[in-house]
Amino acid sequence: MSIRLDGKATSNQIKAELEKEVSSIKKSGKRPPHLAAVLVGNDGASLTYVGSKVRSCEKIGYDSTLIRLDDTVTQQKLLDTIHKLNNDPGLDGFIVQLPLPKHIDEETVLHAINPDKDVDGFHPTNFGKMALGMETFIPATPFGIMELLRRYKLDISGKHAVVIGRSHIVGRPMSILLSEKGNPGNATVTLTHSRTKNLSEITQKADIVVSALGVPNFLTADMVKQDAVIIDVGITRVPDETHPKGYVIVGDVAYNEVKEKASYITPVPGGVGPMTIAMLLQNTMLAYKRNAS
Amino acid sequence: MSIRLDGKATSNQIKAELEKEVSSIKKSGKRPPHLAAVLVGNDGASLTYVGSKVRSCEKIGYDSTLIRLDDTVTQQKLLDTIHKLNNDPGLDGFIVQLPLPKHIDEETVLHAINPDKDVDGFHPTNFGKMALGMETFIPATPFGIMELLRRYKLDISGKHAVVIGRSHIVGRPMSILLSEKGNPGNATVTLTHSRTKNLSEITQKADIVVSALGVPNFLTADMVKQDAVIIDVGITRVPDETHPKGYVIVGDVAYNEVKEKASYITPVPGGVGPMTIAMLLQNTMLAYKRNAS
Repeated sequence: MSIRLDGKATSNQIKAELEKEVSSIKKSGKRPPHLAAVLVGNDGASLTYVGSKVRSCEKIGYDSTLIRLDDTVTQQKLLDTIHKLNNDPGLDGFIVQLPLPKHIDEETVLHAINPDKDVDGFHPTNFGKMALGMETFIPATPFGIMELLRRYKLDISGKHAVVIGRSHIVGRPMSILLSEKGNPGNATVTLTHSRTKNLSEITQKADIVVSALGVPNFLTADMVKQDAVIIDVGITRVPDETHPKGYVIVGDVAYNEVKEKASYITPVPGGVGPMTIAMLLQNTMLAYKRNAS
Repeated sequence: MSIRLDGKATSNQIKAELEKEVSSIKKSGKRPPHLAAVLVGNDGASLTYVGSKVRSCEKIGYDSTLIRLDDTVTQQKLLDTIHKLNNDPGLDGFIVQLPLPKHIDEETVLHAINPDKDVDGFHPTNFGKMALGMETFIPATPFGIMELLRRYKLDISGKHAVVIGRSHIVGRPMSILLSEKGNPGNATVTLTHSRTKNLSEITQKADIVVSALGVPNFLTADMVKQDAVIIDVGITRVPDETHPKGYVIVGDVAYNEVKEKASYITPVPGGVGPMTIAMLLQNTMLAYKRNAS
């Protein structure tokens, strides 16, 4: 039987720490950190994510701004919006919720964000700093996983970590962070992806598996080593009429069978997801402090 | 018996291609590409490298400038020099030869270089672009290895590559490039380093090994799989009185024994080294074209 890596509780703990910090900032007469989110269109999942980010801000005392644009908005209009946010001295950081409508080039948009306000850490300058081990905004999902490992005091130095998926948002930065100097860090990391052959053979030898594939119940018990640490980044919506929302969120990991074999495991929901929001708030606090100094 | 990956011949081929391009640029009445190198102090190896870069420029028809500063130069004076080079419209790219004297902060210096002229690809913005799969200046050593694989038409897609060493200049970018989408690319990559346990077990399973450790004759035949592709980035100067220079250049790979087992192998010298210079020249051509347009 494994120990649950409780992302929900850890996230609440981080938020409580930030709330305390905000409270003392306000007491000193200063304005609190301020995060803005730009949402284009009405995608259901995106609405949920952005809504959750905005509510989390309010809960811990940050100012927040939600900017909603119609999905017919032109790229230029979106860039104008970003330009305004870049130049707003009362705003510490902002995010543009992905995915964007197809007529808008995501790369152009993300690169238009001032790196100093890029609390998602997707701008090349921030991504490069992360890859070079410098202090910067680290993409929230891999940052959340590192923080979870840190708070549970899991020593990954010299261990073999296998990351499944090479996305720019999760897999790639995850593989870099796990292998960087630091604590947690110093793992031997294998990055696997769609072209990887014999994936099971690779995961079977891993001390840590981070799955960011988006395929429900993909990682089964036969694919993992006894006592491995299992991190599930998958959050696929699977239709389910018995649930009031009409769907359930299912991870990449066949949780019920893998938990019997793992030493530590993140549940879905309640694992990596809540950590992501906590780290976005933490990045916003970093932006605030830099902005203030 | 293995096939030698002849970096010297491949490098000469690339240089010949660039020379042809420069020649037609000059015929059209335009100025040729222009690379500058900044060398601080009198370190023997650094002098050799920089000298070789400058000579290569001259040979293929680039303009080149060598700026030598005393090793007592202040950081501010060096930054002033960089600022001048950043703003020189007649200069396409420049490098600051590493290592720098201890009283100078390398990070501060490298970050002062205009990313558009950073033909070494060490600036965070360029490093981030590389890690995100965008067109940019790729650090010359891993870029040279990718080019060697490409010209020898070695298919690494889905193969298991093991990189030894996580330096920002070689190991880290190498691990990223090998696993990115592209051809060559799409390898499953394991990045190993000083904290890695059981390194032999990992290298024994690798289809491709890139060693960038700097320990002479470290990788022995028992550590590699039959028919593996072996790339040796090591260039350690080992004292040897029988040689006129008083030293020999020795790679990480025990060449004589490993070559019997490998399918392809780079020699030292004459492997990765010459490719590094060719790719610096290629990056300079890219900078020239961007500058011209």
